[in-house]
Amino acid sequence: MIEDKIDELGFVLPTVPVPLAAYVPGVRTGNLIFTSGQLPMEAGVLKYKGKVGTEVGEEDAKHAAQIAVLNCLAVVKSILGNLDFIERVVKLNVFVNSDSKFGNQPEVANGASELLVKLFGEKGKHARAAVGVNILPRDASVEIEMIVEVK
Amino acid sequence: MIEDKIDELGFVLPTVPVPLAAYVPGVRTGNLIFTSGQLPMEAGVLKYKGKVGTEVGEEDAKHAAQIAVLNCLAVVKSILGNLDFIERVVKLNVFVNSDSKFGNQPEVANGASELLVKLFGEKGKHARAAVGVNILPRDASVEIEMIVEVK
Amino acid sequence: MIEDKIDELGFVLPTVPVPLAAYVPGVRTGNLIFTSGQLPMEAGVLKYKGKVGTEVGEEDAKHAAQIAVLNCLAVVKSILGNLDFIERVVKLNVFVNSDSKFGNQPEVANGASELLVKLFGEKGKHARAAVGVNILPRDASVEIEMIVEVK
Repeated sequence: MIEDKIDELGFVLPTVPVPLAAYVPGVRTGNLIFTSGQLPMEAGVLKYKGKVGTEVGEEDAKHAAQIAVLNCLAVVKSILGNLDFIERVVKLNVFVNSDSKFGNQPEVANGASELLVKLFGEKGKHARAAVGVNILPRDASVEIEMIVEVK
Repeated sequence: MIEDKIDELGFVLPTVPVPLAAYVPGVRTGNLIFTSGQLPMEAGVLKYKGKVGTEVGEEDAKHAAQIAVLNCLAVVKSILGNLDFIERVVKLNVFVNSDSKFGNQPEVANGASELLVKLFGEKGKHARAAVGVNILPRDASVEIEMIVEVK
Repeated sequence: MIEDKIDELGFVLPTVPVPLAAYVPGVRTGNLIFTSGQLPMEAGVLKYKGKVGTEVGEEDAKHAAQIAVLNCLAVVKSILGNLDFIERVVKLNVFVNSDSKFGNQPEVANGASELLVKLFGEKGKHARAAVGVNILPRDASVEIEMIVEVK
């Protein structure tokens, strides 16, 4: 059970985040689920705000990426009922609120990618784009969206 | 008829925008249509240029998002013939040309999201990512791309 | 044969780039392949580093986009075995590491788009989003991800 593994690794699957606006947390089309962009929300609080490289350190940003991807999983669970119905994690897009000199977006995004592989094994190996941006909603340090294939 | 609703709300469905370059406005694969990124083009003119938070106000940017998403719908119509064949709006990606201190991308993106829900009801509820960027093509304030599921 | 055309045009199909981190170069789901974001890597070296508009000229950035999209094709080949099995190039997302005043992302992205049309003809015509960002991994000037439909 994936949710047991989340517990064993010391993480918490969040409750489904309420969208900041007029959209829904995720949509299923065929056997793909597209999640909305998720911020590092923990118990309703946005963690690790600010620009990575100056205001937020790389390790903290990596942790922010872990929290954001857990929110993606919470969205998938809200649609699918059970994370064990995930057939494959297909794609992550990781946006990092970055100082213009900070080029370690891959290391930050690894916070999310490594957690998925720990949880899902081979099924957790995904394609990924990691890019820097100059600002994110509410000055979040990281925003992640996910595509998964389901059974 | 969706096009009648666009009229009733006081909006105009644009003619299909000519791509700025060597690509096409949208592609259908299976029962998904992916649009190209659309700018706030109205009658061939780019509206609301500049960075949101300093050069462009939040309300103007929200209007820019409405115009950009209407261009997305124009693309879908050019492929599908009729917007009533949309089964579901799956995903919006909203890029906001932002001052580095401006964190209200969700409010800007709502210009597009709320219009879709007014037009399509339940079928218009979509997943969404809204991010800030430091510049967009031709200094557009907003760029939006859309994925829709069709019948 | 697409690979012959790559040679004829004077380009080289790279070896599959090793991901910078804990993910895979691409994933197939159904008849779609999503590639990871690719940088302008040539023989293991990142070419054309820096911000377009100040540190990197538009022509060099266009060349960087060509190299990045060849890396996308290398990823597809690693999954599919043969580029001739591509049914359609569906989508490119082109992120350009941009000075905040540089708005010619479409011209830069054309480096990739025009090459695809030369190689694939009608099948190479794709939807596209081109956006500016303030930084990319390793200060790359361009990052491109691709979705293709396969037979």
